[in-house]
Amino acid sequence: MAITQLSKYGEFGLIKHLTKSFSPKNSSTIKSIGDDAAVLNYQNSLTVVTTDLLVEGVHFDLTYTPLKHLGYKAVVVNLSDVYAMNAIPKHITVSVAVSSLFSVEMLEELYAGILRACEHYNVDLVGGDTSTSRKGLFISVTALGEVEKENVVYRNGAKENDLICVSGDLGGAYLGLQILEREKKAFENNPNIQPRFQGFDYILERQLKPEARKDVVKELKSLNLKPNAMIDISDGLSSEILHICEQSNVGCKIYEEKIPLDTQTINTAELFDIQPVTCALNGGEDYELLFTLPLSFYEKIKGNPMFSIIGHIVPKNEGNYLITQQNSVAELKAQGWNAYISHQ
Amino acid sequence: MAITQLSKYGEFGLIKHLTKSFSPKNSSTIKSIGDDAAVLNYQNSLTVVTTDLLVEGVHFDLTYTPLKHLGYKAVVVNLSDVYAMNAIPKHITVSVAVSSLFSVEMLEELYAGILRACEHYNVDLVGGDTSTSRKGLFISVTALGEVEKENVVYRNGAKENDLICVSGDLGGAYLGLQILEREKKAFENNPNIQPRFQGFDYILERQLKPEARKDVVKELKSLNLKPNAMIDISDGLSSEILHICEQSNVGCKIYEEKIPLDTQTINTAELFDIQPVTCALNGGEDYELLFTLPLSFYEKIKGNPMFSIIGHIVPKNEGNYLITQQNSVAELKAQGWNAYISHQ
Repeated sequence: MAITQLSKYGEFGLIKHLTKSFSPKNSSTIKSIGDDAAVLNYQNSLTVVTTDLLVEGVHFDLTYTPLKHLGYKAVVVNLSDVYAMNAIPKHITVSVAVSSLFSVEMLEELYAGILRACEHYNVDLVGGDTSTSRKGLFISVTALGEVEKENVVYRNGAKENDLICVSGDLGGAYLGLQILEREKKAFENNPNIQPRFQGFDYILERQLKPEARKDVVKELKSLNLKPNAMIDISDGLSSEILHICEQSNVGCKIYEEKIPLDTQTINTAELFDIQPVTCALNGGEDYELLFTLPLSFYEKIKGNPMFSIIGHIVPKNEGNYLITQQNSVAELKAQGWNAYISHQ
Repeated sequence: MAITQLSKYGEFGLIKHLTKSFSPKNSSTIKSIGDDAAVLNYQNSLTVVTTDLLVEGVHFDLTYTPLKHLGYKAVVVNLSDVYAMNAIPKHITVSVAVSSLFSVEMLEELYAGILRACEHYNVDLVGGDTSTSRKGLFISVTALGEVEKENVVYRNGAKENDLICVSGDLGGAYLGLQILEREKKAFENNPNIQPRFQGFDYILERQLKPEARKDVVKELKSLNLKPNAMIDISDGLSSEILHICEQSNVGCKIYEEKIPLDTQTINTAELFDIQPVTCALNGGEDYELLFTLPLSFYEKIKGNPMFSIIGHIVPKNEGNYLITQQNSVAELKAQGWNAYISHQ
């Protein structure tokens, strides 16, 4: 790869260079990059806004994260929050701080991933910053989306007897990370070793190139199903269902046997001598959607391959419990401090 | 000051703690911090969005920047971009990454400044992140605002014969920084020395606690004056007028004698043996508004103490020139690479 120093480009030249392939796709983009601020038209709907800051060494490790995947993921984790409001993402801003060790080509890779995500999710990049840092890579993404007033879904709307549903399968992203960490250690011990990634393709993709579930929001709309509460699973199922229960002032019963797990997730968990369900409950980064639906929608949703019904909402005084496969009862607890505190 | 480690607070406890004094003031804030995303009502106007990333050692120096002032300034520089669209800021998100050397009390100071800015400018904090960094403090702020479709002002609307106007005075923030740097060096040479700040209060405030010109946007509205083009002065007058001229496909003539300078700015420039006008042209961080108005508005604006008319727009082929006090002509040039590249 050629190495071009960042200083080759002038003050505004670098941004022009990095964003030249981005062209607005949404009619709601009135003014994109190039003025003091972008101008957006959300006049027929509510505006949804969310932001995430990704820090090298805390949220990602460049040893095994390709920059293109990182750019893609940085966008996706924000879009996932927009979908979790039952909204459609339309616009993002991206600010990046890089150390002087970064080359123009490395930034191009990062922006190629950002562009790929913008194209796949039909969102427009409308602003941002590029700056230097003394150490490490920082990526701050803000996503905006739109939703009709009557369709917005919060965390606080779950009702007693609601079905608790989840899209896709859980725990894979966490185990993908364990494989990457294992191979990093092996490489550090012996730089001549070939990484052992065969048979782990699905969980590696879950970790390195997750997708936000725009198809789920679309499917719910086409089935005419509006969830009472919804959240995206970034911190693990336990933590997320507890957010819904706390904010909705209810309790929950989750059935271990109903939690969706991919075969590769189960096999890899066994390889690491972990319970697969623990990865689903506490692993995080799956970016699936967790939502509750009135019981009356049972017929409409059962058997839909996109969703699993994993439990139901109970009165608050009945607590938050997991019913294990052995039919014992375990209290659901949130994960502790993990160096990453989100407002959202 | 007491020192409480960040880890004392749980994953979501720190955010709750830092944001407990922030309460929404705008009816357009439908849902603030606490869900996957904030929900905002911009249904009767266009949405304006801008973002800035501030990096320790690049954009600020904690040796002489009080954290409360830094929090205030991080908000203000974004609001300034919103006002430069002739819009009213309504909402911000703030993401912060801090090294483990930071205490809860230090973050409280930073957020106290953010709160002060929110109160002064009547904006609501509606989301964000707090994360750790391996080294240094990073603050990413995104500001959203609203403007009626017919009132938005871009950089690209300047017309031949327009008056070029600027609010307040220029060059002070740059000289304030020179005083702070001078005293930092003096302190490094002799830690027992008392800093010599007397007589520099105005320019120090311009650097450490700048304000965004919401009063200017209000005054223009009350005078029924809509600028043809507007930009905020973050990088120095030269660079900003060239943005307007380039995007509007016109040229400009600026008169040195008309550029507004405070007495303290002039005296301090002389102390450092710099031309005062150089500080105005290239210094930056003044956060005044630069705008162009049709010549027909001359009677309405002349003599208004809030504004100075500093020149006029000319055809593009006449170039971009400064007429000096000695009546010579100098081509206006933008500053070079300054390690800080903004999309906006």
